[in-house]
Amino acid sequence: MSSARSGLRVWTVIVAAGTGVRFGGPKQLVEIGSSTALDMSIAAARGVSEGIVVAAPEQMRQELQRAGTVTVAGGATRAESVRRGLRAVPADAQAILVHDAARPLATPALFGRVVEALEAGEDAVVPVVPVVDSLKRLAEDGSLHSVPRENMFGAQTPQGFRADVLRAVHASGLDTTDDGGAAEAMGVRVACVDGERTNLKITTQADLVVARALARAYLEGSGR
Amino acid sequence: MSSARSGLRVWTVIVAAGTGVRFGGPKQLVEIGSSTALDMSIAAARGVSEGIVVAAPEQMRQELQRAGTVTVAGGATRAESVRRGLRAVPADAQAILVHDAARPLATPALFGRVVEALEAGEDAVVPVVPVVDSLKRLAEDGSLHSVPRENMFGAQTPQGFRADVLRAVHASGLDTTDDGGAAEAMGVRVACVDGERTNLKITTQADLVVARALARAYLEGSGR
Repeated sequence: MSSARSGLRVWTVIVAAGTGVRFGGPKQLVEIGSSTALDMSIAAARGVSEGIVVAAPEQMRQELQRAGTVTVAGGATRAESVRRGLRAVPADAQAILVHDAARPLATPALFGRVVEALEAGEDAVVPVVPVVDSLKRLAEDGSLHSVPRENMFGAQTPQGFRADVLRAVHASGLDTTDDGGAAEAMGVRVACVDGERTNLKITTQADLVVARALARAYLEGSGR
Repeated sequence: MSSARSGLRVWTVIVAAGTGVRFGGPKQLVEIGSSTALDMSIAAARGVSEGIVVAAPEQMRQELQRAGTVTVAGGATRAESVRRGLRAVPADAQAILVHDAARPLATPALFGRVVEALEAGEDAVVPVVPVVDSLKRLAEDGSLHSVPRENMFGAQTPQGFRADVLRAVHASGLDTTDDGGAAEAMGVRVACVDGERTNLKITTQADLVVARALARAYLEGSGR
């Protein structure tokens, strides 16, 4: 762990490069409350970010261009989209956050906690929430086997990294959907901050129903 | 595994004995759409059950009494409530399901799948859904360590058991919140059926917001 670094120059890469084939349309543009998923992610990242890069599907670059952001064409995989986003982040950025546009309910406070941990000296920071259901591993014979749930957490985004750490993670061209896990595999210490149970990932239409209900109940009430 | 058993005499124990101290009130009676959580669970269990036992808080036994169900006073723990429920299940029941009233969105179809697996000869059946988020274990030094997510599932209720298996699980007076895990610890093979992503457990007020939205979007549309 490095020593404390205050006032970091932070950039955020928002991964919005999916075309939503399984979902039935581009998730970035679904309306959540009074805004789109992408715009909610940008608004949440804004407060802590000197700049924001949006990795968009090539054919949607115009449509996803937003004032005050840099839009790049994403790749065929999430990792490739992150790599292309990183190339648009200035060399003097000291910390880089990676956030999935499919998690539009992440709050500005959560972005703040991730940056605070980086400022406190962490090299990699992942927001986590406790696993709620009993965990089971399915064996080849179709039987279930309990997995201790103590100290077990689900990872979310935004994840934050010292800039050179994240660039090194992606320098090798690896294919990962888990930046924190990839940093860990390189021997980097990965710290955690409290995630948010409401910060769900929109994968299915049912998730969208949930996200809209949460936005109505909480986020609009709090002025977002 | 036993051989196939068709036309099982099935009873369901609905655990509704929490007083909702952390939640801020009794969860059994919260309105989800046009019904209460308890009544939705009873309606879903009805189709497959010869009888239903509701384990209620002692002071709410009158309030939670429902036509066509047996109400018993629950205990101080979930396991004790299951045990008291089991005592009210007739000795000639062949299969027993255990369901948490905090999961009011479990559908009649899910209850049906659990019973079908028991009829096919399984001794213990747990509905599961794939884990969506990357899993991490938190080490004592505060660092996160990736846990492979392949074949990893979250367990739900209703869980189903051959009656003598569930009675044996609870005969020892053990304190478990995971009936399937307790059966597994006794050497019983635990099978799985597909759970439902919408079958969430209501733990927080945010979960209640989610449950209501899902009920509006799906369950009422499908006639429940």
